[in-house]
Amino acid sequence: VRLAEIAERIGARLEGAGEKELRAVRSLEDAGPDDLSFVLDARQASRLEASRAGAIILPDRLPCVGRPALRMGNPSLGFARALALFHPSDASVSGIHPSAVISPDAAVNRTASIGPLCVVGAGAQIGAGTSLLAQVHVGRDVRIGSDCRVFPHVTLREGVRLGDRVILHSGAVIGADGFGYAREGARYVKIPQVGCVVLEDDVEIGANVTIDRATLGETRIGRGTKIDNLVQIAHNVQVGEDTVIVAQVGISGSTRIGSRVTLAGQVGVVGHLTIGDDVIIGAQSGVSKDISAGTVVLGSPAVPHGEFKRQYASLAGLPALRKLVRAMERRLEELERRLVG
Amino acid sequence: VRLAEIAERIGARLEGAGEKELRAVRSLEDAGPDDLSFVLDARQASRLEASRAGAIILPDRLPCVGRPALRMGNPSLGFARALALFHPSDASVSGIHPSAVISPDAAVNRTASIGPLCVVGAGAQIGAGTSLLAQVHVGRDVRIGSDCRVFPHVTLREGVRLGDRVILHSGAVIGADGFGYAREGARYVKIPQVGCVVLEDDVEIGANVTIDRATLGETRIGRGTKIDNLVQIAHNVQVGEDTVIVAQVGISGSTRIGSRVTLAGQVGVVGHLTIGDDVIIGAQSGVSKDISAGTVVLGSPAVPHGEFKRQYASLAGLPALRKLVRAMERRLEELERRLVG
Amino acid sequence: VRLAEIAERIGARLEGAGEKELRAVRSLEDAGPDDLSFVLDARQASRLEASRAGAIILPDRLPCVGRPALRMGNPSLGFARALALFHPSDASVSGIHPSAVISPDAAVNRTASIGPLCVVGAGAQIGAGTSLLAQVHVGRDVRIGSDCRVFPHVTLREGVRLGDRVILHSGAVIGADGFGYAREGARYVKIPQVGCVVLEDDVEIGANVTIDRATLGETRIGRGTKIDNLVQIAHNVQVGEDTVIVAQVGISGSTRIGSRVTLAGQVGVVGHLTIGDDVIIGAQSGVSKDISAGTVVLGSPAVPHGEFKRQYASLAGLPALRKLVRAMERRLEELERRLVG
Repeated sequence: VRLAEIAERIGARLEGAGEKELRAVRSLEDAGPDDLSFVLDARQASRLEASRAGAIILPDRLPCVGRPALRMGNPSLGFARALALFHPSDASVSGIHPSAVISPDAAVNRTASIGPLCVVGAGAQIGAGTSLLAQVHVGRDVRIGSDCRVFPHVTLREGVRLGDRVILHSGAVIGADGFGYAREGARYVKIPQVGCVVLEDDVEIGANVTIDRATLGETRIGRGTKIDNLVQIAHNVQVGEDTVIVAQVGISGSTRIGSRVTLAGQVGVVGHLTIGDDVIIGAQSGVSKDISAGTVVLGSPAVPHGEFKRQYASLAGLPALRKLVRAMERRLEELERRLVG
Repeated sequence: VRLAEIAERIGARLEGAGEKELRAVRSLEDAGPDDLSFVLDARQASRLEASRAGAIILPDRLPCVGRPALRMGNPSLGFARALALFHPSDASVSGIHPSAVISPDAAVNRTASIGPLCVVGAGAQIGAGTSLLAQVHVGRDVRIGSDCRVFPHVTLREGVRLGDRVILHSGAVIGADGFGYAREGARYVKIPQVGCVVLEDDVEIGANVTIDRATLGETRIGRGTKIDNLVQIAHNVQVGEDTVIVAQVGISGSTRIGSRVTLAGQVGVVGHLTIGDDVIIGAQSGVSKDISAGTVVLGSPAVPHGEFKRQYASLAGLPALRKLVRAMERRLEELERRLVG
Repeated sequence: VRLAEIAERIGARLEGAGEKELRAVRSLEDAGPDDLSFVLDARQASRLEASRAGAIILPDRLPCVGRPALRMGNPSLGFARALALFHPSDASVSGIHPSAVISPDAAVNRTASIGPLCVVGAGAQIGAGTSLLAQVHVGRDVRIGSDCRVFPHVTLREGVRLGDRVILHSGAVIGADGFGYAREGARYVKIPQVGCVVLEDDVEIGANVTIDRATLGETRIGRGTKIDNLVQIAHNVQVGEDTVIVAQVGISGSTRIGSRVTLAGQVGVVGHLTIGDDVIIGAQSGVSKDISAGTVVLGSPAVPHGEFKRQYASLAGLPALRKLVRAMERRLEELERRLVG
């Protein structure tokens, strides 16, 4: 691809000649004269001089470097767009593979692709440009929008609804029964889980994630929210828009998570809470209370960031405090002996 | 369904006329005049007045509400039964789908159902009324009892045994090799895992759960125990009856968990421990010692509930304690100066 | 198998007659006169006398026991080898099952086995003696070495590379997209993940593990490393040789883990760190800093073992310290009253 065309397609300002043809995007270390490379922040700039890359995506503020540069205020976005340009999402499948088992009652758009050994149940709808890669399970009455990509071994249980451009990675299970029981003496009686799951437009769900169907009503993941691998979302949870949930997080039943929230890895959130917009929850935190919008929390149980740091510093200083108290006790005894004895 | 019939079927005492026909079970907010709704505890009662529900499942002690009520001492149980009445578990599959690959040596009861693209190995036995939904893997010599439901993409490795009415959610892997190695210098040599896994009657296993086969002997989950999504049960673990294991818990090898135990989300238990009956382990706890029956523990490392609260309160009060000690030190210095100086 | 032959095959020194034929390996409690049993350490020796086992694998230093013994310096290794002798890894499948969907462009060695309902993509290579058990997904251009075993419902995404003797348990997902996005205002734009995953020789991967493909370059798991169930390995992580990663661990992007490292269960490691060789990380630890070779760390945030123990002891002694300070304060007041008042 010609450099001038790359600049135009990724929205960069070209600095230098635009005639050069580039073949791939590579790291500063791996790139050769025919490759495009990238500097995302000032720390990486020191590695730039030694690089053989033919052209560089570069933040606005960094100095030029004796070769063509693609200037961007947001170089990460340029990197994402350049990769998409060199690696167009390949369909991998096209048309309907003869080994797929598709109910005659399903409505599959003629531009959708269904790979080998998929199952599509009665009443399912599959939108334009959507690909089920292979060995996918689509239960009855599932509705999938357009331009979705569903990777091998995904399970969509009955009645699940997906918006457009949703990506589901392998092993994800959407719409399994929520974990709900009534007690009858010492025994547990299953509460049928008859609600559904809705994933809105532009949601991406990682490998082996589990998102349970609601008891009644719906479990909902808002537009643009991204969920990493092995995350657990319990029944009736509501997640807002543009929220990021990192790997191995668990969210218990009926909790509401706001928009633009970040949950770092291995966080646990108990049920029936409200987590406000723009909250950040640090890795491995355990959240057992509501959190108001914009707060940064940390720890298990989670407390505001400043309080966590104070507690942790106090804990680190505890052996010294203990020594000080022991020394003071001896001095106190000495004074008592003098004064009283 | 007529209200009088619902009352009889769920074991409630009808208060008001029983002629009304109801169409669905809905939350207080969503229910209309043709729907049954429910109040499970006193906190929900305030939302009752505004509800348009045609009839209500109501705890014995709450006041009546100008419409028919189904009185129960245990309204959650009534709710579970009413949902089951309105949503009979639908088989989804019936008979043997022609795309299933079933060994001629397998014994499949004529009332069992095997959905599309399932594999059933040699020597496997599948009991009356059991459904394998689709894309299930049943290894050789697996024995499945009657009236079980196995959802898509479940894997049952060779020799696994299931009782009756067992439910396995999508992506669960039962009987993978335990994690066992001998050292040979710096390298690890695999210890073959040749035992099995037994799931007793009425066990329910969540999506993407992993329960490993024993090295020798068996890994066993007792009658009526319920396991949530993404839980890890290692080789040779024994779990008692009517125990509840919430999402993302991990239990290490050879540990014994009693009956009627509750393990909250993300708990970790090290190997070779004994956890007594009726123990409750709080979310995210790390258990590294035996726990005697009836104890409530919390924290990582886990300690009895009271001790955890004391430790946590002390930690929260630590900055104040530190200030007090500093002030006392100054007062002590002043006394010393006066007395000695 | 004759005892003398077992001794020779497992590398043990036979003590007693070697003529006896043995039928199985069983625990001390379950073994009968025709079974081989084992004592792995001195603690188990007390249970030896009551055992009916016909012969025993025994550490060098323990006393003899009135029956033939197989003496080994490393009895665990003898146990592993004896189990392998009595339970030869059974192929379960042989040849190519007619229900498998194999691209005509794939290169499958004639001694490889492909079970029912597997999918093998274009350009894939499958080596000699390798078995895909059933319902496995092999994406395009995947390269699998010789003598690998891939269990049901494993997903290998496009371009993944496996060495020889690799074992992949059910539900493992190798090569799903890494979790990487650029910001565009409040929204997230997917960064295409176009790198790959390499699993070197003798790696074993547990059930429902997720190992993400690199953004660029590769995610790599070194020779002989063993990974337990439900572990998350993010994009561009590098793991050394003979490392052990226990269940439910999560390792964030671009982190480098050394060789012969042990990560106990539920550990979390943040991104872009370097963990040295021979490090041991205790269960549930949260690692947020580099760790130098040979260190043992514990806690969240993780600190060296000795420091963790001091902190924890201080925390446990905190209520007592608080009492002591209160008492000293009263004594101080008394002194002040006398001296000043």
